[in-house]
Amino acid sequence: MKIGIADTTFARYDMAKAAIDELRRWVPGTIHRYTVPGIKDLPVASKKLLEESGCDIVMALGMPGSAAIDKQCAHEASTGLIRAQLMTNKHIIEVFVFEDEAPSDKELARLADARTREHAQNVYKLLNNRLSEEAGKGKREGFADVKPVDF
Amino acid sequence: MKIGIADTTFARYDMAKAAIDELRRWVPGTIHRYTVPGIKDLPVASKKLLEESGCDIVMALGMPGSAAIDKQCAHEASTGLIRAQLMTNKHIIEVFVFEDEAPSDKELARLADARTREHAQNVYKLLNNRLSEEAGKGKREGFADVKPVDF
Amino acid sequence: MKIGIADTTFARYDMAKAAIDELRRWVPGTIHRYTVPGIKDLPVASKKLLEESGCDIVMALGMPGSAAIDKQCAHEASTGLIRAQLMTNKHIIEVFVFEDEAPSDKELARLADARTREHAQNVYKLLNNRLSEEAGKGKREGFADVKPVDF
Amino acid sequence: MKIGIADTTFARYDMAKAAIDELRRWVPGTIHRYTVPGIKDLPVASKKLLEESGCDIVMALGMPGSAAIDKQCAHEASTGLIRAQLMTNKHIIEVFVFEDEAPSDKELARLADARTREHAQNVYKLLNNRLSEEAGKGKREGFADVKPVDF
Amino acid sequence: MKIGIADTTFARYDMAKAAIDELRRWVPGTIHRYTVPGIKDLPVASKKLLEESGCDIVMALGMPGSAAIDKQCAHEASTGLIRAQLMTNKHIIEVFVFEDEAPSDKELARLADARTREHAQNVYKLLNNRLSEEAGKGKREGFADVKPVDF
Repeated sequence: MKIGIADTTFARYDMAKAAIDELRRWVPGTIHRYTVPGIKDLPVASKKLLEESGCDIVMALGMPGSAAIDKQCAHEASTGLIRAQLMTNKHIIEVFVFEDEAPSDKELARLADARTREHAQNVYKLLNNRLSEEAGKGKREGFADVKPVDF
Repeated sequence: MKIGIADTTFARYDMAKAAIDELRRWVPGTIHRYTVPGIKDLPVASKKLLEESGCDIVMALGMPGSAAIDKQCAHEASTGLIRAQLMTNKHIIEVFVFEDEAPSDKELARLADARTREHAQNVYKLLNNRLSEEAGKGKREGFADVKPVDF
Repeated sequence: MKIGIADTTFARYDMAKAAIDELRRWVPGTIHRYTVPGIKDLPVASKKLLEESGCDIVMALGMPGSAAIDKQCAHEASTGLIRAQLMTNKHIIEVFVFEDEAPSDKELARLADARTREHAQNVYKLLNNRLSEEAGKGKREGFADVKPVDF
Repeated sequence: MKIGIADTTFARYDMAKAAIDELRRWVPGTIHRYTVPGIKDLPVASKKLLEESGCDIVMALGMPGSAAIDKQCAHEASTGLIRAQLMTNKHIIEVFVFEDEAPSDKELARLADARTREHAQNVYKLLNNRLSEEAGKGKREGFADVKPVDF
Repeated sequence: MKIGIADTTFARYDMAKAAIDELRRWVPGTIHRYTVPGIKDLPVASKKLLEESGCDIVMALGMPGSAAIDKQCAHEASTGLIRAQLMTNKHIIEVFVFEDEAPSDKELARLADARTREHAQNVYKLLNNRLSEEAGKGKREGFADVKPVDF
């Protein structure tokens, strides 16, 4: 297994370090890390990891700011990440943490770390067909899960 | 007939279970289920079901949250699902239920179940060229239909 | 000439019936009708009409609701229809009537009928290179035209 | 040189006439004009001009209305025009004049005429590699230029 | 190494001059400059630089205005730049400076100059695999960096 990690210098937390640490616990194989300036550079970075470095799956890590323009950038990046997946038929697990999702710097770091690690576990589960067990369970990476609903 | 079901762990109701149950009543053939973390993972999951698992049609099931960012995610997912269809010339029936479409958890579950089942019937009708009979009839999956207009 | 008509069960008026009736007056040849659940299913339906049924041009007919989410759906559908045209180098004439464009059900039906018929005429004119005569004339399908401006 | 002009019947001013008049002063060669109903038909019209009529460059002319839905249409058209360029590696110079850019019908016509003519000159300059001379100069087609900034 | 610079006549500062000056300090090789009217022309210009001029990487430089329509244009341009990268598997470093990011003309010029130069350095670091050293460090081109967070 070859797993790609695309991350940014714009982010305020070393999400790739957390991703690599967590992946090592779950997935055997090699990890390719590729750092770019910002989230809008992640789509092509991820596609290069999939096509040029031969990765089977990529985690795209980023921390958009809280201004309106940052949300627009995130939207553009997400759209590009989806397009990259459709062009390659491989998964790119997007892990974005918005600066306004946490009330303090400390909480922001904790959230970035936790969400990255839980998505690293998703990578493992996805590669091993283990996610159907948790389908419809209200999973929320980085936050407490939400309870399922029934009638 | 091979029918694909792509669903998520983010959803709060097991829509795939409802889809499979309903499809079994209408469509002969095999069903492939593929679960991913969130709705933005559905486009490539659906495309893989169509191209790698040989499905003839896919149902993409998801339950976006009610925050602004969730609506943006749904928009990105929908755009990707349309792109995936254009790349494959096959249908992906999107079944999204927004958390703010229902006034209570119970109603949300009921809505998710009903919309999924009605779209499963749409899959059957689409595969059998039966939808023209209902064209322009104001069909609303999961809710009561709206009455047609005339002059 | 083969003309495709893609329409929906979501619409509240049988726009396809109006389109077919009007096309019969202007364009010789066969008409293929293909009905899908909603407007987001129109892009692939139109592309299938162009590529699999061999249509020369398609009319994509839909009636989006008036809520914010409906406008987003319409945006996604329109983007997909444009993409489908670019992939095929053929025209898909989008005929969308928004529920909030008319003050009453009766007016909505009248608008849907008129806009569809005028766009059916556009199909004829487009196929016969007749639109340049009306270029810059402020044409408004379904409503009264707007007067041209000059200085 | 073959230059394509794509325009609409929706526009309220004959921008193509102004474009052709201006192009004749600057660029030798033939001009192909292709009129479609509205701006959302411009992307495929432009691509057909580039690929089927063999044009080297296209001007896409349109006048979106002032309502929110018109801005959305313009956004969809612009996105499609950019996609068409990326698919062909040729330029499509978009000349859009929004109805609310001018305080009166007369001013709107004057603006549509001026912007079209200045962009026709851009076509000439682009084909002849003359735009770098004006880089960073705050050019504003149809309006007075904005002054450059320095520190 | 061949580096492409795509810039605009719409911009109010000669960002390309700053980019070329800075690149000369860091990267050996040739620089191709290509000027277009506005930011929506940058995607195809960048793609032509990558595919027709054989550039290894491109800097796309622009200065969107501050009106709502300018933000929409920037969004369309950014989306196109990401698409161009995915079609070529090469990086296009977008350097956009919005007119409302600075309180005065002087500051705007200073910001445009600084952001361009810092992104020129990013080009060097990207080509030499030096960005991972700065991953998660809260880099902000043109402004002071933001401090990283931890827990």
